[in-house]
Amino acid sequence: MSNTLGNRYRVQIFGQSHSPMIGAVIEGLPAGVAPDMDFIAAFMARRAPGSGDLSTPRREADAARIVAGLNERGETCGAPLCALIENTNARSQDYESLRDVPRPGHADYTAWVKFAGHNDIRGGGQFSGRLTAPLCFAGALAMQLLRDRGIAIRARALSVAGIRDQEIDLARPPLDAISEGPLPTLDPEAARRMAEAIAEARAAGDSVGGVVECFATGLPAGLGEPMFDGVENRVARALFGIPAVRGVEFGLGFEAAGLRGSEHNDAFRMADGRVATDTNRHGGALGGITSGMPLVVRAAFKPTPSIALAQRSVSLGRGKDAPLEVRGRHDPCIVPRAVPCVEAAVACVILDMVLEN
Amino acid sequence: MSNTLGNRYRVQIFGQSHSPMIGAVIEGLPAGVAPDMDFIAAFMARRAPGSGDLSTPRREADAARIVAGLNERGETCGAPLCALIENTNARSQDYESLRDVPRPGHADYTAWVKFAGHNDIRGGGQFSGRLTAPLCFAGALAMQLLRDRGIAIRARALSVAGIRDQEIDLARPPLDAISEGPLPTLDPEAARRMAEAIAEARAAGDSVGGVVECFATGLPAGLGEPMFDGVENRVARALFGIPAVRGVEFGLGFEAAGLRGSEHNDAFRMADGRVATDTNRHGGALGGITSGMPLVVRAAFKPTPSIALAQRSVSLGRGKDAPLEVRGRHDPCIVPRAVPCVEAAVACVILDMVLEN
Amino acid sequence: MSNTLGNRYRVQIFGQSHSPMIGAVIEGLPAGVAPDMDFIAAFMARRAPGSGDLSTPRREADAARIVAGLNERGETCGAPLCALIENTNARSQDYESLRDVPRPGHADYTAWVKFAGHNDIRGGGQFSGRLTAPLCFAGALAMQLLRDRGIAIRARALSVAGIRDQEIDLARPPLDAISEGPLPTLDPEAARRMAEAIAEARAAGDSVGGVVECFATGLPAGLGEPMFDGVENRVARALFGIPAVRGVEFGLGFEAAGLRGSEHNDAFRMADGRVATDTNRHGGALGGITSGMPLVVRAAFKPTPSIALAQRSVSLGRGKDAPLEVRGRHDPCIVPRAVPCVEAAVACVILDMVLEN
Amino acid sequence: MSNTLGNRYRVQIFGQSHSPMIGAVIEGLPAGVAPDMDFIAAFMARRAPGSGDLSTPRREADAARIVAGLNERGETCGAPLCALIENTNARSQDYESLRDVPRPGHADYTAWVKFAGHNDIRGGGQFSGRLTAPLCFAGALAMQLLRDRGIAIRARALSVAGIRDQEIDLARPPLDAISEGPLPTLDPEAARRMAEAIAEARAAGDSVGGVVECFATGLPAGLGEPMFDGVENRVARALFGIPAVRGVEFGLGFEAAGLRGSEHNDAFRMADGRVATDTNRHGGALGGITSGMPLVVRAAFKPTPSIALAQRSVSLGRGKDAPLEVRGRHDPCIVPRAVPCVEAAVACVILDMVLEN
Repeated sequence: MSNTLGNRYRVQIFGQSHSPMIGAVIEGLPAGVAPDMDFIAAFMARRAPGSGDLSTPRREADAARIVAGLNERGETCGAPLCALIENTNARSQDYESLRDVPRPGHADYTAWVKFAGHNDIRGGGQFSGRLTAPLCFAGALAMQLLRDRGIAIRARALSVAGIRDQEIDLARPPLDAISEGPLPTLDPEAARRMAEAIAEARAAGDSVGGVVECFATGLPAGLGEPMFDGVENRVARALFGIPAVRGVEFGLGFEAAGLRGSEHNDAFRMADGRVATDTNRHGGALGGITSGMPLVVRAAFKPTPSIALAQRSVSLGRGKDAPLEVRGRHDPCIVPRAVPCVEAAVACVILDMVLEN
Repeated sequence: MSNTLGNRYRVQIFGQSHSPMIGAVIEGLPAGVAPDMDFIAAFMARRAPGSGDLSTPRREADAARIVAGLNERGETCGAPLCALIENTNARSQDYESLRDVPRPGHADYTAWVKFAGHNDIRGGGQFSGRLTAPLCFAGALAMQLLRDRGIAIRARALSVAGIRDQEIDLARPPLDAISEGPLPTLDPEAARRMAEAIAEARAAGDSVGGVVECFATGLPAGLGEPMFDGVENRVARALFGIPAVRGVEFGLGFEAAGLRGSEHNDAFRMADGRVATDTNRHGGALGGITSGMPLVVRAAFKPTPSIALAQRSVSLGRGKDAPLEVRGRHDPCIVPRAVPCVEAAVACVILDMVLEN
Repeated sequence: MSNTLGNRYRVQIFGQSHSPMIGAVIEGLPAGVAPDMDFIAAFMARRAPGSGDLSTPRREADAARIVAGLNERGETCGAPLCALIENTNARSQDYESLRDVPRPGHADYTAWVKFAGHNDIRGGGQFSGRLTAPLCFAGALAMQLLRDRGIAIRARALSVAGIRDQEIDLARPPLDAISEGPLPTLDPEAARRMAEAIAEARAAGDSVGGVVECFATGLPAGLGEPMFDGVENRVARALFGIPAVRGVEFGLGFEAAGLRGSEHNDAFRMADGRVATDTNRHGGALGGITSGMPLVVRAAFKPTPSIALAQRSVSLGRGKDAPLEVRGRHDPCIVPRAVPCVEAAVACVILDMVLEN
Repeated sequence: MSNTLGNRYRVQIFGQSHSPMIGAVIEGLPAGVAPDMDFIAAFMARRAPGSGDLSTPRREADAARIVAGLNERGETCGAPLCALIENTNARSQDYESLRDVPRPGHADYTAWVKFAGHNDIRGGGQFSGRLTAPLCFAGALAMQLLRDRGIAIRARALSVAGIRDQEIDLARPPLDAISEGPLPTLDPEAARRMAEAIAEARAAGDSVGGVVECFATGLPAGLGEPMFDGVENRVARALFGIPAVRGVEFGLGFEAAGLRGSEHNDAFRMADGRVATDTNRHGGALGGITSGMPLVVRAAFKPTPSIALAQRSVSLGRGKDAPLEVRGRHDPCIVPRAVPCVEAAVACVILDMVLEN
């Protein structure tokens, strides 16, 4: 089940970077929903390789085609939905040498061990960021259903290369004030400086990392399950499925560890007839169950491991140290494309919990 | 399956803080293993409420009794193993008023919503830290099996109340140098100051948080599965099942987000005939699969939400704001008892992956 | 998950015939339900070893004690429910010789292979019919919840030793006309003759088999899921978990294979404003989904393999043929105690589907 | 998970009779296997609509295309394998009237209730026998892997329309003596008479049912798990996923219910250094675990519910009784195409257990 996410909104992802197709099979969709293909395509376009200095020159339409799961009126019919995306722009010859000399920071070596050398090395195989395309399909579809329930999900680039967007009140995240574009932020100046840092790294044959912060608003209290199926467990499991994530935190996260209880507890109060908190250091979940306050989650992305600079590695075949120069097309920073991926993962989990309720 | 952890080493936890018993049912143990009850008891004693200023005055033997799953020679026999722990020292009257006025930072309110007021409020019910006792049983048993495979797991109090233990080389974590006692550290002076800070918080009717860092050494390369069942996904899912965890990170974690690829990538090299890395910023997992380097994971614990200071809350029955003073017995810092819990959760996940392999 | 049944009403069974305890952990119960312990005890008494010629002389109270999952008012609280049953009357010495010489028709040999000789041989270990006691607990609790939803479940001894109870209209099974007692039938004369045949077999040191037929009425249309999680798939999976079941069929079952479509199809008609069928050859499920007609399922039980007559077997230790005489206490016919087990298994599955809906 | 089969060889099926595509995603395949596409195609051809009087005039190539899961050498690479089959010959207009007037014996009505009228009515939607095409793909692939482990699986038409193939020794099923062709039997005369009966039923606008008997030889002892994941539980769950199955039995099945223990028990003996039984009334599984003797399972298929004769039904829209005449293309007997489906389901389950071991 390693490629499957969710209990009730069950997303099975398949494909490799250079297999003929990638896609997703989704079980558990309510019947009678007509997928909003324009909305889905617009969402997926945010993840697709773009233009400019921010991402890889590889271009793909990333057009998802639904080949199963709809009735003759184009509505979900109770059967699993299958969406396919063709891999049309794969340049597999770039990767041949990697089979022997694994890229530092990549899964080349660990996949080689795990699958006894049968792993698909082309484009990173199943470990490629390309597999986030079907995740974004599933997430966009989830968002469509959540939108109808008054739930909104939006992420921003909180930091890139150490440059940080402005602080906000976690109890009232201004979702609509987050900018469009490859580096969604509240402060346009921060986005500009982030873009600059990315361009500098690219020029240096290097890469940078960053932190994505995601909010979900409109959540009812009571979603999630105790212990191992709480909001945090499930969101964390989903987010660590996105390549390059090294940490996940909720509310104040690691910062909470340095506070006193009296500084960290969010006092309850009545607001408009319902229970709320003035502050939101808990990030919308207590005991794994939503409190009705906005969900706040952060994911740390490491710098893209594929860099143009020369690196040290080994030859697996010869059992000797070997130098490596990575060719191929790579993002100098994963954050711009990771923002919609984080939203998608969070959307899948929240819809899963909503349907479970 | 919200109380169940693992695919092959499958741990189902049950009980509430004040139910007659708590326990665990474990499926997937290899047959023929004689549980080392002394080892398990010693491990569980580390989690049990202790003496001194560091933890709650509640005392419990936490003795686990195995009532199913062993043959007449005391070996696992292929049947699920069931271990029971009696709740003998529960003072339920302390919690009556909490049903109406939920404690900030606790699951009282969210559980009330989720279970429509039928939640067990006594001692926090199923959300209590007491439920980590069966987790520690399962973890100790896992450690026994891992020990036989040359795998060691050890955690330390990396920081408490902002006081930090010394830095180490993540590629060579000195497990044996970590001190015994309630605040395992490398630097005894750090432990002393942490204990001091905890005592101060207790005296002030307040609490503090901290970060636990856990290492697993002796891991073969190739454990874990791609995408959603990788090492990080599974360890994170398990760790967020421990109450008060707000963030989980691997290797350099959030710090990685501020580095360049050339600074973060760990170069491969041959060492003693196997592939290794000199540095271990990746924390032992690449693409969700172990690399053979030590696993490094950190969990951030918020300050104990139960504090003696007066707090603001609401009366759920009257739908009005209401003041709250928490009585009962509480730890001023969860870290000392969280250290073995983190080890246990990591052990369960690693054994799960080992058996899956 | 081999000892776990159900998606939403999730029953995990543990224990062996002679382990200190056996029991069940149940996840997914709605909160706020007070288990009707009298109802449950009465139901479990039907499965417990009885008196007279029909069953084994082993006597056990089979009293289930709920040790977790209830709040202070005795209601389910959202936490997993754990029920324990003590094994108080185990005479393990009866089984020692079986470790070397497996009983024909039993799991002694296959368990020895599977668990490399570590299987618990005492009383059949985890393969014992004793494990149906926790199943009956879970089933009785399920029946209590189903009763409140207007769903009734009742089974009868359709045949024993070739003696068959009278035919009925499957569209209108007269549940209330099924007799109480160890051999529930419609025709008391059939029950008398079945009892006679069982007594004869016992006297001859032999055993007999039979067929249990179970009905569920009051089911709404629309329960179950397509393909592998339909009513039949799930009921069959559950029933084959009861020792000695060799076949499961629905509606006309194997008889349907000899009919023409025009003879087998049940015509739809409107009745009291809802869709119904006059006949019920389909047994209440079409495409794996309930039709609103009574569920009709039959389970074939082989004759108890433990017989007093001398049999041929092998010595596993010496790798030679060896004679066997089985000692210990055994039912000459499993049907009387299997009737409530079948009801329990069906009840668990139906509640599972009801909660899933 | 309703469309998913297996724990380790995990087959997720998707599609509807008239969706653009149907297919399967398979997780858990060992890496390094090159699918034998000729073998798979030949196997799938046995299920595909054929010629002559035995099956529907609908013709489809049923060519499966693997679009994910293989490396550049055409071997499995550790990623999920996805196989697609196009639906090219769908005549959806045949089914329009069925949305209002459900066919007796079909899932039209139950699916309408379950999915609130959004079910895909075209060709039976996801309840169509067409969905056994991807099951056959998965089964053929499983057979390829089992073949390499010395395990063979073969089914025959045991009976059609009451005409029965000859009896055999269940301990030594002569797999190679089973004929090729649409009605595999041991006795060619039986096949001839079955074909005749099918032709007669077709001529009368009617249909007939039958029983398929399947054997698996070469199984090691020790496959399967106790209680709910035994051989029988899993095979039964899989077989009831094939449309029209009404009963499943193992070994002597329902016949066992009429025997005495002394007549039914299979004595153990040593043969060629391993434990065996001379007779095989138990059908290869004891306590849910394989004994090393051939697995013997039978599935009863009802007569095809789609018949040309006029039938009584209801108009769901008007809530009134309504006559029905079914148009479209239908098999007068499902058995010829069910034979490979049964083999496929059994193969999937056995490989699942083999990989689990």
